[in-house]
Amino acid sequence: MKDIQLRELHRNATSYADKEVVVRGWVRTNRSSNKFGFIELNDGTFFKSVQVVYEADKISNFEEVAKAPIASAWLVRGTLVLTPEAKQPFEIKAEEVTMEADSAADYPLQKKRHSMEFLREIAHLRPRSNTFSAVFRVRSLVAYAVHKFFQEQDFVYAHTPIITGSDCEGAGEMFRITTLDMDNLPMTEDGKIDYSQDFFGKETSLTVSGQLEAETFAMAFRNVYTFGPTFRAENSNTTRHASEFWMIEPEIAFADLNDNMDLAEAMVKYIINYVREHAPEEMAFFNSFIDKGLLERLDNIVNSDFGRVTYTEAVDLLLKSGKEFQYPVEWGIDLQTEHERYLTEEVFKKPIFVTDYPKDIKAFYMRLNDDNKTVAACDLLVPGVGEIIGGSQREERLDVLTARMAELGLDEKDYWWYLDLRKYGGVKHAGYGLGFERMIMYLTGMGNIRDVLPFPRTPKTAEF
Amino acid sequence: MKDIQLRELHRNATSYADKEVVVRGWVRTNRSSNKFGFIELNDGTFFKSVQVVYEADKISNFEEVAKAPIASAWLVRGTLVLTPEAKQPFEIKAEEVTMEADSAADYPLQKKRHSMEFLREIAHLRPRSNTFSAVFRVRSLVAYAVHKFFQEQDFVYAHTPIITGSDCEGAGEMFRITTLDMDNLPMTEDGKIDYSQDFFGKETSLTVSGQLEAETFAMAFRNVYTFGPTFRAENSNTTRHASEFWMIEPEIAFADLNDNMDLAEAMVKYIINYVREHAPEEMAFFNSFIDKGLLERLDNIVNSDFGRVTYTEAVDLLLKSGKEFQYPVEWGIDLQTEHERYLTEEVFKKPIFVTDYPKDIKAFYMRLNDDNKTVAACDLLVPGVGEIIGGSQREERLDVLTARMAELGLDEKDYWWYLDLRKYGGVKHAGYGLGFERMIMYLTGMGNIRDVLPFPRTPKTAEF
Repeated sequence: MKDIQLRELHRNATSYADKEVVVRGWVRTNRSSNKFGFIELNDGTFFKSVQVVYEADKISNFEEVAKAPIASAWLVRGTLVLTPEAKQPFEIKAEEVTMEADSAADYPLQKKRHSMEFLREIAHLRPRSNTFSAVFRVRSLVAYAVHKFFQEQDFVYAHTPIITGSDCEGAGEMFRITTLDMDNLPMTEDGKIDYSQDFFGKETSLTVSGQLEAETFAMAFRNVYTFGPTFRAENSNTTRHASEFWMIEPEIAFADLNDNMDLAEAMVKYIINYVREHAPEEMAFFNSFIDKGLLERLDNIVNSDFGRVTYTEAVDLLLKSGKEFQYPVEWGIDLQTEHERYLTEEVFKKPIFVTDYPKDIKAFYMRLNDDNKTVAACDLLVPGVGEIIGGSQREERLDVLTARMAELGLDEKDYWWYLDLRKYGGVKHAGYGLGFERMIMYLTGMGNIRDVLPFPRTPKTAEF
Repeated sequence: MKDIQLRELHRNATSYADKEVVVRGWVRTNRSSNKFGFIELNDGTFFKSVQVVYEADKISNFEEVAKAPIASAWLVRGTLVLTPEAKQPFEIKAEEVTMEADSAADYPLQKKRHSMEFLREIAHLRPRSNTFSAVFRVRSLVAYAVHKFFQEQDFVYAHTPIITGSDCEGAGEMFRITTLDMDNLPMTEDGKIDYSQDFFGKETSLTVSGQLEAETFAMAFRNVYTFGPTFRAENSNTTRHASEFWMIEPEIAFADLNDNMDLAEAMVKYIINYVREHAPEEMAFFNSFIDKGLLERLDNIVNSDFGRVTYTEAVDLLLKSGKEFQYPVEWGIDLQTEHERYLTEEVFKKPIFVTDYPKDIKAFYMRLNDDNKTVAACDLLVPGVGEIIGGSQREERLDVLTARMAELGLDEKDYWWYLDLRKYGGVKHAGYGLGFERMIMYLTGMGNIRDVLPFPRTPKTAEF
């Protein structure tokens, strides 16, 4: 008899009422008297477990089952009985309970509260806990929601390269990649390391952004997106930074900054709706045990029209606020999290896009506004977190772009193909980047980026 | 007036008949007399272009438009007219044609046949060609089909790490990652490079497989999959190898080799059906211009029950064939492409799984069969290509696994967390790996892996 997964059983319990079912799963808890016992069995397909009732009179191996340790795996054949009066909606009255895999007594994830730090040390086991089961299922669903959102609008998914031969992405410190023999580096005649003998014939690094390559695809397919891992070699040990993380970077052609913000707003709402619909149990868990106001905050986002305010207006609002900030406010500064949170939480009380930042604090490729001082950038700030999306209209005018590059001392030769996009049908276009882990933190209330990554990589940490 | 994307116009042309429409796109071709002209305009959202008819009597800037160069971008307002008698199903009679972006006369992708080698040198422009527009749209659709297939069955998508601190994945040569100053490497007292000062405090590399980490997730969620970039530092310049490529690795718990093959077969058929349904124009193009028998071959796969044959039976079939192979056949050899193709193309004439390979030519984690000579492996061979999937049931018995590791000289300490999975509820489980680019080559008929990767990385090549 084929076993039934617990997701199916939970979703359609009534149709199995009083029928024989077979399930498989791992023991979460097991308690017994000398006549009967209860196993909370979980097979990983659903957030909630199923209660198995076993009785000494009904199964031949009662004593073995009564000793079933946490994490051991069993096949259970029995009758599903609805229990509308009990905490759980149904239970299985066992007729047969057979071991599929034993578990050692020193299983580290016993039924008690563990610290997040300890759980990181057993990252290979923590997805079996309630919290991480919820986090990683939500992570999976959100990843799919991102694809679904873009694919339903016929965006083309582009796998931009992870290994890059240019260091001109400019978004941060990079990791070097090499196959040279480190103990015996080849040298050129003038005493430098001979990277022409390296695997790719030159110096290479891990990408910090797929945007520049995504722009090449946008000039072919109009609407495209990337979704892949990106890397930062910054030695920053914060709860919001990881050395390896995933990023989503849509890029749209024949589009300006407003189109870009419309897309970002629609995407954020789509993701929230998707995860609310497909992981109600997990989201309720986060709301109860991780972040009390979570669902209300997410509802507020879905039901708001996101605000739009220029950087200059935002600075005025901060100056007029009368609040004392740790970082003093004046036109030209990069907004800090305290400023961002004040704007979105206290002034607007909803998500806002801040647009048109000073060019000096933004990247070279952002489109220069007519004031010659600001660029067509847009950052999305959300209550409780601050910035989660950064984007811009791109500079499509070849002369303006090369002038800006000259100002910054960037060499046109390094960007030949990027400049080509402006020579050959370089229409207006825009895009943004969404840090995937930041979004997961926001959706779950988890406070540390290490706890939304399956196996986090941070300075001095690359375990598993 | 809002512009309409060409995909929408092509899919629902009749509903726009004789109505005013606005489109934007890039010029593919432009020919004119002194009275009227035709522009083939493409906006990237659809494989086919739209024909724009412009007349000197109707638009004010006829001379400008008549000179519109290839790759320049235009907004066209006009009336959509169905043309059932013509080659194209409809055309737009222009009332207004406005330039959105010019293009220089030296645009490298003129309307003529270019070699694949030349197109690789302009990888930033080649997605604008018919062939690569088709390849990369299909690539995007197949990526989505993979996610859809697994998500519809509630598999959890796991982002396994790209940077790995262990070199025990064993699937191939690895790229080193470092932030050490290469010109001034820190040394330990005994004269070795001091990797404790490297970014992660030890030696790290790019992953060659996410399987071992995926197994940790399968022991929590039952059914999981990975889909991410993987890397090989092998110096092999073939049409089938890239240094950076994407891989899909499902892993299923409470499952054996037969479940694994059932899943792989269902996935392959799902992908083919999805791409046939969602990219009919592109697939017809491949069938006409890239690979004449393509659609017939794919139909054959969808309509076949994949064969299953043991390695031992396969070797017998090869020995009895009377064929002379370049690599002689005997029990114990690794099957070569010539053997694989003979089996799938000439003997079975459909896809086949070859199972139960000699343990000595397979990885340490594959489950040992009762004969003590073979392991529960399964490779999927398909006509025209050979192997596209490799998988196995995993060795879940701790004692058998550690004995096998000892045989191979592997250190248990390096695998402590992998062995933990066998200590704590290590149920039977199985999984496989699908090389994403191999699948795209198979679906499109493209003969070189460099031409299904947006920006391929191969030995001595990491451009863009």
